[in-house]
Amino acid sequence: MNFVKKMNMKILIIGATGTIGKHVTAVLQKDHEVIKAGSKSADMQVDISSIESIENFYKQVGKFDSLICAAGDAQFGPLASMKDADFRIGVNSKLMGQVNLVLIGQHYINPKGSFTLTSGALADDPIAMGANISTMNGAINGFVKGAAIELENGVRINAVGPDIVEESMAYFSYFPGHVPVTMSRVAQAYVKSVLGGQTGQIYKVL
Amino acid sequence: MNFVKKMNMKILIIGATGTIGKHVTAVLQKDHEVIKAGSKSADMQVDISSIESIENFYKQVGKFDSLICAAGDAQFGPLASMKDADFRIGVNSKLMGQVNLVLIGQHYINPKGSFTLTSGALADDPIAMGANISTMNGAINGFVKGAAIELENGVRINAVGPDIVEESMAYFSYFPGHVPVTMSRVAQAYVKSVLGGQTGQIYKVL
Ligand SMILES: NC(=O)c1ccc[n+]([C@@H]2O[C@H](COP(=O)([O-])OP(=O)(O)OC[C@H]3O[C@@H](n4cnc5c(N)ncnc54)[C@H](OP(=O)(O)O)[C@@H]3O)[C@@H](O)[C@H]2O)c1
Ligand SMILES: NC(=O)c1ccc[n+]([C@@H]2O[C@H](COP(=O)([O-])OP(=O)(O)OC[C@H]3O[C@@H](n4cnc5c(N)ncnc54)[C@H](OP(=O)(O)O)[C@@H]3O)[C@@H](O)[C@H]2O)c1
Repeated sequence: MNFVKKMNMKILIIGATGTIGKHVTAVLQKDHEVIKAGSKSADMQVDISSIESIENFYKQVGKFDSLICAAGDAQFGPLASMKDADFRIGVNSKLMGQVNLVLIGQHYINPKGSFTLTSGALADDPIAMGANISTMNGAINGFVKGAAIELENGVRINAVGPDIVEESMAYFSYFPGHVPVTMSRVAQAYVKSVLGGQTGQIYKVL
Repeated sequence: MNFVKKMNMKILIIGATGTIGKHVTAVLQKDHEVIKAGSKSADMQVDISSIESIENFYKQVGKFDSLICAAGDAQFGPLASMKDADFRIGVNSKLMGQVNLVLIGQHYINPKGSFTLTSGALADDPIAMGANISTMNGAINGFVKGAAIELENGVRINAVGPDIVEESMAYFSYFPGHVPVTMSRVAQAYVKSVLGGQTGQIYKVL
C-alpha cells in the first residue's frame, strides 16, 4: 500500500491565537501553509461579525484549500434575565460569523477544499446559563448538515463540537460533571475534518 | 387508579390558522380555552419577528398556561446564492421569533405552564435548498434543551420537529424520499408537550 500525505495545503485558521485555535495551528502548520487570523491578534485581521471584513479577508488571501473557524462569541448568562440583545451576541458572532465565512468563502475556496466550523457539546448536553450557546451550537450543527449536501466542486464541511477543554479552567465550575477534554483530541478532530474525506459530520469531542 | 384530566387551561397558539396550527387548535380547543393568534389572521395579532409586538401580545392576553408556536419563516433557496440577508429571514422569524416568545413569555406564564416551539426534521435530515431551515431547526432544538434546565416555577419547554406534513403537498417534490406525516400525529406531538410532563424534549414526527 502506498500512503500519500496531502501536502502543502493552504489553510486559513480564524481564531488561531485562541485556546483551541493555537493547538490546531500547531498541529497543521507542521505540514501545511497556515494563515493565522483573529480580530486583533495573529497574522491577518478579520472580524467574523462583519460581512465586509470577511469579504476583504478572502480578497486578500485569495484561493485556499481549507478554512477552520475556532472563533465565535455567544452570551453566557441566566435565561431569566436574557433579552433579545443578549441573544443576538451569539447570533451575530458564533452563528452568522461562521455561516458568512461559508456563504462568502464558497466563492473563493479551491475544489475539494473544506470548511471546518466549531459548535460544542452544549448543543445536546446543556448547562445552566448556557441557553444562548446551546442554541448557536445546535444551529451550527444544523447548518453543517444542510450545507454539506449543497456545496459544489467536492467542497466539504464539518463541525467540531468539543466539551469544555482542559485549558479553559476558568469555566470548569460552570460545567459540573463534564470531564474536560484534552487539547490533543480536540486538535485531532479538526485534523480529521481537514485531511479526512468526510462531509456533513459533527465531530463531537466528549 | 384515578385519571384526572387537566381541564380549562388557557392556551395561546401562534400560527393557529396555519397548516399545522389549525389541527393543533382543533384538538386542544375541545377541552381548553384556546387563544388563536397570527400576524394577520386569527383572533389576535402578533408579529413574532418584533419584540414590541410580542410584549404587547402578552400584555393583552395576561397570564396563561401554555404557549404553542407553529409559526416562523425561513429562507428556502440554493446555498450557492445565499447571502447574509437571506439567512437573516430565518434568524429573525423562525429562530428569534420563537426565542423571544420564551424570553419575554417566561415573565407572564403561570407556574407549571409550558412552551412548545416548532423545529423540523431538516435539522438532521437535510434537503437541497434547505440550509437556512436546517440551521434554524437545529437552533430551536438547542434552545429547548438549554432553556429547559433553567425555566423556573416548573415551567416546561419542548419542540415538535415534524417531517414534511401530508397537507403541504406544494413542497413534496423538494422532499424526495421523505414520507409525509399525518396531521393527526403532528397534532398529538403538541398535545404530548402541553398535557404531558416532559421538558427539554424534541418530539420528532417522522
Ligand atoms: N474553550 C472551550 O472549552 C470550548 C469548548 C467548546 C466549544 N468552544 C468554542 O470554540 C470556539 C473558540 O473557543 P476558545 O476557547 O478557543 O476561544 P478563545 O480562547 O477566546 O479564542 C478566540 C479566538 O478567536 C479570535 N476571535 C475572537 N473574536 C473574533 C472575531 N469577531 N473575528 C475573528 N476572530 C475572532 C480571537 O482572536 P482575537 O482576540 O485576535 O480576535 C482568538 O484567536 C468558540 O466558538 C467556543 O464557543 C470552546
Ligand atoms: N408544513 C410542514 O410540512 C412543516 C414541517 C416541519 C416544520 N414546519 C414548521 O412549522 C411551522 C408552521 O408551518 P406551517 O406549514 O403550518 O405554516 P403556514 O401554513 O404557512 O402557517 C403559518 C402560520 O403562522 C402565522 N404567521 C406567519 N408569520 C407570522 C408572524 N411573523 N407572526 C405570527 N404569526 C405568523 C400565519 O398566520 P398569519 O398569516 O395571520 O400571520 C399562520 O397561522 C413553520 O415554522 C414551519 O417551518 C412545517
